[in-house]
Amino acid sequence: MEKIFSLDDMLGMERDYRRNLMNTISGFKSASLIGTVSHRGISNLAIFNSVVHISATPPYLGFVMRPLTVPRQTYHNIRARGFFTINLVAESFFEKAHQTSAKYDEQTSEFDACGLSPQYTSAHPAPYVLESPIKLGLQYEEEHHITANGSILVVGRVIEALVEEGMIGAEGHVDLDNSGLVAVGGLDSYYRASLLKRMPYARPEKE
Amino acid sequence: MEKIFSLDDMLGMERDYRRNLMNTISGFKSASLIGTVSHRGISNLAIFNSVVHISATPPYLGFVMRPLTVPRQTYHNIRARGFFTINLVAESFFEKAHQTSAKYDEQTSEFDACGLSPQYTSAHPAPYVLESPIKLGLQYEEEHHITANGSILVVGRVIEALVEEGMIGAEGHVDLDNSGLVAVGGLDSYYRASLLKRMPYARPEKE
Repeated sequence: MEKIFSLDDMLGMERDYRRNLMNTISGFKSASLIGTVSHRGISNLAIFNSVVHISATPPYLGFVMRPLTVPRQTYHNIRARGFFTINLVAESFFEKAHQTSAKYDEQTSEFDACGLSPQYTSAHPAPYVLESPIKLGLQYEEEHHITANGSILVVGRVIEALVEEGMIGAEGHVDLDNSGLVAVGGLDSYYRASLLKRMPYARPEKE
Repeated sequence: MEKIFSLDDMLGMERDYRRNLMNTISGFKSASLIGTVSHRGISNLAIFNSVVHISATPPYLGFVMRPLTVPRQTYHNIRARGFFTINLVAESFFEKAHQTSAKYDEQTSEFDACGLSPQYTSAHPAPYVLESPIKLGLQYEEEHHITANGSILVVGRVIEALVEEGMIGAEGHVDLDNSGLVAVGGLDSYYRASLLKRMPYARPEKE
């Protein structure tokens, strides 16, 4: 049996219940740590489940920031320095990655507070997460403010990718299941995934 | 050992290789069928891996559409009728869901072509996918055109949710792992997920 919720039903739910429901109801997400550095040189790390693919050529990714009703260090650092990193979360450090969602003050680096290691390259100033098997360096490109609630879509151009040897298959696919990467449901539930099937390119006559 | 790719390395890759890499490199995604209906009444179904959470109060979700360089029936139907549905893909029908990515002509409903069943409610005209255990009805709210490549973020307000009984836990979390829902990597690889851990709300003193 199926239960039908109207908008009024949803708006009438207790606040935390609705938050949990609305964050999990759109299914599995990637878990990424976004690394930035402030104009004072303090590194910052924050976990996001909202990274989306924008384009392959040239390579662009985006992510959704919550409204700027409180200070958002990730956003301010990206605007101040122009660069950020996206580091996929693996099973070996997902609990440390989750801990970055705690509200640390501006002077504290989540790298130190959560026990993760910054890694730098010469391409840009933003810190990567050494422990991550897939790390992307991005240059800020544009942003879009969502009128409905003040969320922001931040878009960056991928200018560098650091990938563990052997994780990319012959056709360019990242081997997500053998990489130890996790998926996330909502804001707190971490999942291990195993491949069901890789499907061929779909054509009308194949069905 | 870790391999470093510069932007030039990425732009120098063979086109399909780069597409596969850039679509999988941001990790696991949700797999959703977006259901719409044209101004002529022809139902349409298309698979997306780009649904993002925007807001819980009021409930908004978004998804990224590829550029309008070719006709995009999902987009045109949403603009013509004002409503769409998001239907999470489960293991029991993921191969049919994948088949909706084939290029059918405008007269053909993917429901018929791919063997899925439309389901309607009185709340709006867009078709749900009967086979899906989690179905959301959305009213078009706004869109943002990404300057970098012409992709579009479409945002909708969730006005209805149809959820299989027993799938929502006491605190509002959808039980993603016991629901048979799949995650997707890139455009073609489907995954089953199992819960590693639900983490508590993170606070600075807990580490």
